[in-house]
Amino acid sequence: MSQGSHSAADTPEAAAPEGGRASAPSALTRFLPILQWGRSYNSQTLSDDLVAAVIVTIMLIPQSLAYALLAGLPPVVGLYASIMPLIAYALFGTSRTLAVGPVAVVSLMTASAAGAIAAQGTPEYLEAAITLAALSGVMLAVLGFLRLGFLANLLSHPVISGFITASGVLIATSQLKHVLGVKAGGDNWPEMLGALASQVGSINWITVAIGLPVTLFLFWVRKGAKPLLLSFGLKPRLADVIAKAGPVVAVAITILVVMSLDLGESAGVKIVGAVPQGLPPFSLPSTDATLLGKLWVPALLISIIGFVESVSVAQTLAAKRRQRIEPDQELIGLGASNIASALSGGYPVTGGFARSVVNFDAGAQTPAAGAYTAVGIALASLFLTPLLFNLPIATLAATIIVAVLSLVDLKTPGQLWRYSKSDFSAHVATIGITLLAGVELGVISGVAVGLLLFLWRASRPHAAVVGRVPETEHFRNVERHKVFTAPHVLSIRIDESLTYLNARWLEEYVLERVAERPALRHVILMASAVNEIDASGLESLEAINHRLADGDIRLHLSEVKGPVMDRLQRTHFLDELGGKVYLSQARAFAELLEDDGSAPVHSADWARGMI
Amino acid sequence: MSQGSHSAADTPEAAAPEGGRASAPSALTRFLPILQWGRSYNSQTLSDDLVAAVIVTIMLIPQSLAYALLAGLPPVVGLYASIMPLIAYALFGTSRTLAVGPVAVVSLMTASAAGAIAAQGTPEYLEAAITLAALSGVMLAVLGFLRLGFLANLLSHPVISGFITASGVLIATSQLKHVLGVKAGGDNWPEMLGALASQVGSINWITVAIGLPVTLFLFWVRKGAKPLLLSFGLKPRLADVIAKAGPVVAVAITILVVMSLDLGESAGVKIVGAVPQGLPPFSLPSTDATLLGKLWVPALLISIIGFVESVSVAQTLAAKRRQRIEPDQELIGLGASNIASALSGGYPVTGGFARSVVNFDAGAQTPAAGAYTAVGIALASLFLTPLLFNLPIATLAATIIVAVLSLVDLKTPGQLWRYSKSDFSAHVATIGITLLAGVELGVISGVAVGLLLFLWRASRPHAAVVGRVPETEHFRNVERHKVFTAPHVLSIRIDESLTYLNARWLEEYVLERVAERPALRHVILMASAVNEIDASGLESLEAINHRLADGDIRLHLSEVKGPVMDRLQRTHFLDELGGKVYLSQARAFAELLEDDGSAPVHSADWARGMI
Repeated sequence: MSQGSHSAADTPEAAAPEGGRASAPSALTRFLPILQWGRSYNSQTLSDDLVAAVIVTIMLIPQSLAYALLAGLPPVVGLYASIMPLIAYALFGTSRTLAVGPVAVVSLMTASAAGAIAAQGTPEYLEAAITLAALSGVMLAVLGFLRLGFLANLLSHPVISGFITASGVLIATSQLKHVLGVKAGGDNWPEMLGALASQVGSINWITVAIGLPVTLFLFWVRKGAKPLLLSFGLKPRLADVIAKAGPVVAVAITILVVMSLDLGESAGVKIVGAVPQGLPPFSLPSTDATLLGKLWVPALLISIIGFVESVSVAQTLAAKRRQRIEPDQELIGLGASNIASALSGGYPVTGGFARSVVNFDAGAQTPAAGAYTAVGIALASLFLTPLLFNLPIATLAATIIVAVLSLVDLKTPGQLWRYSKSDFSAHVATIGITLLAGVELGVISGVAVGLLLFLWRASRPHAAVVGRVPETEHFRNVERHKVFTAPHVLSIRIDESLTYLNARWLEEYVLERVAERPALRHVILMASAVNEIDASGLESLEAINHRLADGDIRLHLSEVKGPVMDRLQRTHFLDELGGKVYLSQARAFAELLEDDGSAPVHSADWARGMI
Repeated sequence: MSQGSHSAADTPEAAAPEGGRASAPSALTRFLPILQWGRSYNSQTLSDDLVAAVIVTIMLIPQSLAYALLAGLPPVVGLYASIMPLIAYALFGTSRTLAVGPVAVVSLMTASAAGAIAAQGTPEYLEAAITLAALSGVMLAVLGFLRLGFLANLLSHPVISGFITASGVLIATSQLKHVLGVKAGGDNWPEMLGALASQVGSINWITVAIGLPVTLFLFWVRKGAKPLLLSFGLKPRLADVIAKAGPVVAVAITILVVMSLDLGESAGVKIVGAVPQGLPPFSLPSTDATLLGKLWVPALLISIIGFVESVSVAQTLAAKRRQRIEPDQELIGLGASNIASALSGGYPVTGGFARSVVNFDAGAQTPAAGAYTAVGIALASLFLTPLLFNLPIATLAATIIVAVLSLVDLKTPGQLWRYSKSDFSAHVATIGITLLAGVELGVISGVAVGLLLFLWRASRPHAAVVGRVPETEHFRNVERHKVFTAPHVLSIRIDESLTYLNARWLEEYVLERVAERPALRHVILMASAVNEIDASGLESLEAINHRLADGDIRLHLSEVKGPVMDRLQRTHFLDELGGKVYLSQARAFAELLEDDGSAPVHSADWARGMI
């Protein structure tokens, strides 16, 4: 047992926000985390990372192709978006296991934003997607450098989960046409459903014969494959890896089926067709001001949604190994990834949930695993693309449908309804508006509803008229307890900091209580829960003080916290205050009772001015 | 001394938001306050109200003309805006002394909004102003019915005062041209100054010879007239009334000067000219969707600025007589006034500061005083308008300049700088952007800066690692006090409600502290200051619980408030919680210390994981 001779505030570790990690990182290692983990890199971490990279690569190839399809882009763009962004994240990211690349929700948002600029398949559409990645990358990096990651807080959990659920529904619906072999558009859910319904007569049954079994197989493989493989005597880890390769199996089998039965375009089955072979091309985003003007809002939304999703995955995984991520540096890491994507023919990327978990479970130790995955994908785009010619689009659509239906969360609405009506409202508004008016308006409305409800609550915080609990020095709410009060002394406890959002409320609350009490001579504001008084709060206190003085009532404060008092002393408020500042509410009440000479009255009735 | 046998929550007065006024008003009297004060109307209140009305009428005539000029409208529109709106407010308003009509800042905002639609003097310009009044009236009334008055809270005191200061500077500058007899435009301050400077050569010296003495006279009359009149032996109240009539004197004298010296347009002196004689015409706002689309943002800003100014005046005056106003009903009252203005050829109105104080000081007892003022203005527009033909515009401009320069507040920036840097930033940003980019962008930026700073602070609330103060049951911050802690138990006190704005912060904060402490086995969150946990806060608690469980650490809560606990019990969180919920932090710490068998360690070092 040792006597602590200094306080923590004296030590540099406590002053630096990073706190007591093994050594406080310098500004450079904070900006380039690779300088930190790279130092302890050895053959063991190399082999762990390589194993994880192989598994993630196998999982990522069909995902990349499928999400590019979802984004309305050529499949190869999905591969491009899975190479350079991973290397950039390995340099700048702080999560050791986050796997970056194309993800479902961001692909949908890309399709929505680029679709507003040009038709799918045009060079302008691809340029818009690349420009979105560049804009999003710059925004993320700027937010990171300015340490504005807190803006992501504007997305509450109910808004995010509502948005993800609605996106899952929209994405699954948008892919149904590929499984049915029909053409159908639609910018929102009712339109999509209507378009699908009108096409029932033109279903291509050969496409369905491929797409439906693949969908069923992929649903089964998620839950059923691993137990089956274990029952064959495979080791758990190997069984896991093989089960994760389910989509690759589906891709391979359906390619073989199409090739062997010659089911290509002649049979009405849409296939991927020729995919350019080679490494990602160097590309430049557009600098056209009109285009940038149209894309900046969707780019901001993509950035924030992508960041929120990515950070929550990264935090979950880091906590399992008692590691940490640095949210502001994560912004820079994801920003670098998106800029890298834009410069190499890709589209917006972020950390994916499923593949990061796979990466983690497969034993990835450092971000280098991501770089090795990038090498794997690069090899695939160099050598495997010719094999993809006969891949049915229906297989990719099935991959997407199975992946996104797990995003749809039907339990949350009920839980929110029971727990908090206002959170429920924000959740349901986000789902409804996303389904009916699209992803961008959905996110914006969710944020707006959440913020309005928050401001509404913040503008009417809790406060209570209090009285002394008999034979104690405690003061409690007169409406809940039998307490001593007096007709000429009113004690009000304020359970919130005084800020501009509630400053007007404070004036109204106090003056209303005062108007009810004709005998009043003293008001004590008990400030034990007031952590801050901003300039508007101070002005309201001044106004209350003056207005009470006009009515010949004196305003007193009690239990003001130290830092709050320090700031008040820099103003004239304490000079102008009609009454005094008391250290304790008990002292204030006792002294002001005597001031009038009247005895305390044991009834809450007094406090309500009912005499 | 009597024993209170029931709690206040049982009584209807306490349940109704209006509280213990003489009798709880019904829904109808709440909506039509005239039904309440009208009942006790008698000959004494009648005579008080009449006296006040005469004085306010004398003051309002030159103000109405001048502010219409400022709004870029014909002077008679100012008279129209001072008749029906006053009657509407008398029916629906809750302040007994608020004097409604054209005011400086709203007139400036009207000029800015209507000027973006059409050129001054065109019928489209007048239509835009009338439509602004209608839109603003409907918005105010809707906000009132929906009880959304709290939205006005978004305007913090520093933003409002910055906006008012900048508006005062803009208004005074915009009127200088009339005193100098030149033509000069400009949408922002530098442009206005530049335009004035370029006109130095074309100054009309006869106009200056009228405008300058009037300006000096009006400045003097504000402070110097009353003492002079008193020294002549007049009674204080009469002296006050005569001093308030200063602008009327200036108007009368300059009309006589122009008439007698024949200084009209022939001498280059701009005069009011022919003013239509008669009562306000019936007018209808535009229903053109394009126009409404362009005007709704300025109308909303006019509504909110007008409401905030009006409510603060009304509250100040009501408190002096221990009366109350009802902010949501005030919205309806001001809404009705603006709708009445739109239907009678007027433009947006609100409660004016100076004239309300005059009304109050003159002894107005009820809103009927406003209705009598309306009759006075109506008589003026019926019979006095021919007399205004020779009134120099320079006189009206001087009236405006003298009135608005009192709005410019040079002390606030310094006070804010000393008190709060973030409030100072919002204030200065509002002044700067209003001067450089106009009133609308100024208000919007002020709100945005204030909200961003608030959200930034809200997203990182105060929390502290705490330890037990030796030989007590109190727990204090380890960085400020010498306290007992233990390497395997971490106690964190959270000084804020857990909402979506700080949910992510909470996860980071806790996991960061945990990552620093390898020996940790228990985390206690001390929730004594947590008034609310929203769904996002709950999800963060669940995430923290799961992540800690992954690292074999148990999460406990202590001192959870009753209402918060009630809600938690409606969820699965308490079942999933790795640890327990303790009534007191002392109990939790004691029990968990023993759990490990290790003795407490008297050093803050332990708490920082420095071993």
